[in-house]
Amino acid sequence: MTRGVLLDLAGVIYDGETAIPGGVDAVARLRKAGLALRFVSNTTRSSKQEVLERLEGMGLTVTKADVFTPAQAAREWLLRNGLAPYLLVHPGLAPDFYDLPHRDKRAVVIGDAGEAFTYAVLNEAFRELCAGAELLALATNRTFRDADGGLSLDAGPFVAALEFASLKRATVLGKPSPAFFLAALASMGCPPGQAIMVGDDAESDIAGALRAGLSGALLVRTGKYRQGDEKRFDPRPTATVADLAAATDWIIARRD
Amino acid sequence: MTRGVLLDLAGVIYDGETAIPGGVDAVARLRKAGLALRFVSNTTRSSKQEVLERLEGMGLTVTKADVFTPAQAAREWLLRNGLAPYLLVHPGLAPDFYDLPHRDKRAVVIGDAGEAFTYAVLNEAFRELCAGAELLALATNRTFRDADGGLSLDAGPFVAALEFASLKRATVLGKPSPAFFLAALASMGCPPGQAIMVGDDAESDIAGALRAGLSGALLVRTGKYRQGDEKRFDPRPTATVADLAAATDWIIARRD
Repeated sequence: MTRGVLLDLAGVIYDGETAIPGGVDAVARLRKAGLALRFVSNTTRSSKQEVLERLEGMGLTVTKADVFTPAQAAREWLLRNGLAPYLLVHPGLAPDFYDLPHRDKRAVVIGDAGEAFTYAVLNEAFRELCAGAELLALATNRTFRDADGGLSLDAGPFVAALEFASLKRATVLGKPSPAFFLAALASMGCPPGQAIMVGDDAESDIAGALRAGLSGALLVRTGKYRQGDEKRFDPRPTATVADLAAATDWIIARRD
Repeated sequence: MTRGVLLDLAGVIYDGETAIPGGVDAVARLRKAGLALRFVSNTTRSSKQEVLERLEGMGLTVTKADVFTPAQAAREWLLRNGLAPYLLVHPGLAPDFYDLPHRDKRAVVIGDAGEAFTYAVLNEAFRELCAGAELLALATNRTFRDADGGLSLDAGPFVAALEFASLKRATVLGKPSPAFFLAALASMGCPPGQAIMVGDDAESDIAGALRAGLSGALLVRTGKYRQGDEKRFDPRPTATVADLAAATDWIIARRD
């Protein structure tokens, strides 16, 4: 029996600033069917406030507590571990880290910084790691679908670069970290065995969710999806469907 | 019995533009002892011509045929495989690739591009890989000793980033590729079992040479060497010595 659904945002609900057709209506249908919903996003180019405003602009009513972002998980992790962040993130995400208390020890926090990934800042971050800083990855996605429709480098390749240089392993906070999926599920009191994930990333969303113990994970052919993705990573999706509207049909038809 | 010696350049013979004390004299002593010598460098920030001029400026007589560089190996590889280079290298190295014939198919050639590693060019290279280009790494060194004395990111981390993003494995042409060591040894008719490598990189120089079958590899405590490096990678150095002068003493004392 399915009681809860986790939805990815970029590539499932919207592409850039544009809503994916049928997405908003699909969310309403899932809610009407009595399913608990949470949004789990690895987008690390926008603050949570911006994400909420974008969703609202598309006609979706979503509260702060409905959306789980790696930045929020990172804040909690930094507070718990008594570390200050050395930020290697997109300027749009920095506000999510503004009011953390001063600490002597640091963690390099790396997200999808885009053009902000220069040799100089990567090298500075590497030297922080050499000096003892921890390495905290908001996400390890390989690619995202860029504004021109092509795939572009996401945070993952740069996490791999810093891991390779420093011989340190990153602590990963966003998808595919099982803790990330489980935190979102716990917030709605839904055990993983009664939950379905819907996403466009066969690795982070799909393989990640199944490894976290979710009962199913649906890959949509929108966003960054490329032909053959469903066979590229293990475990493979429970099903591959056209979009969130089709995923909603699938979930409602099989919910019991 | 030792008949041939392979010497790394940066960190062994010189640091930046400065000769390491005793290095030039050590080279003369090795030659006087009747040992065949070749220089195997992973430096990919200067053309071979510049490397030769730097050595000459330090009082070392070295011919073009004495120096093995990854760029030279890459040229030969590109010609053999009928591919044109898509260069992601330091501007100083580009001349080594100027006169290659036009080909339709390409290989991304990645070296230590330094500040030239921007998000935009890395992303362009990634898209070349997605479109079918091969990935050719001049070197996979993690770090080099920078002008300020600190360690900085070498080519390796960026090779790791592109491999991670593209799911392709790079063909490595410089150290620690066994073919690179063996080509230098073959040029002086010396079997690997009668050759010693001297370098400051415990991974590329030392573990690499021993994996290629050399009878010994000496780690010097100059250049990028950091305390504990001799225990960081396998196989470990045959011995760890102060510098090239000490390595020369070691080799000459044990040559028979």
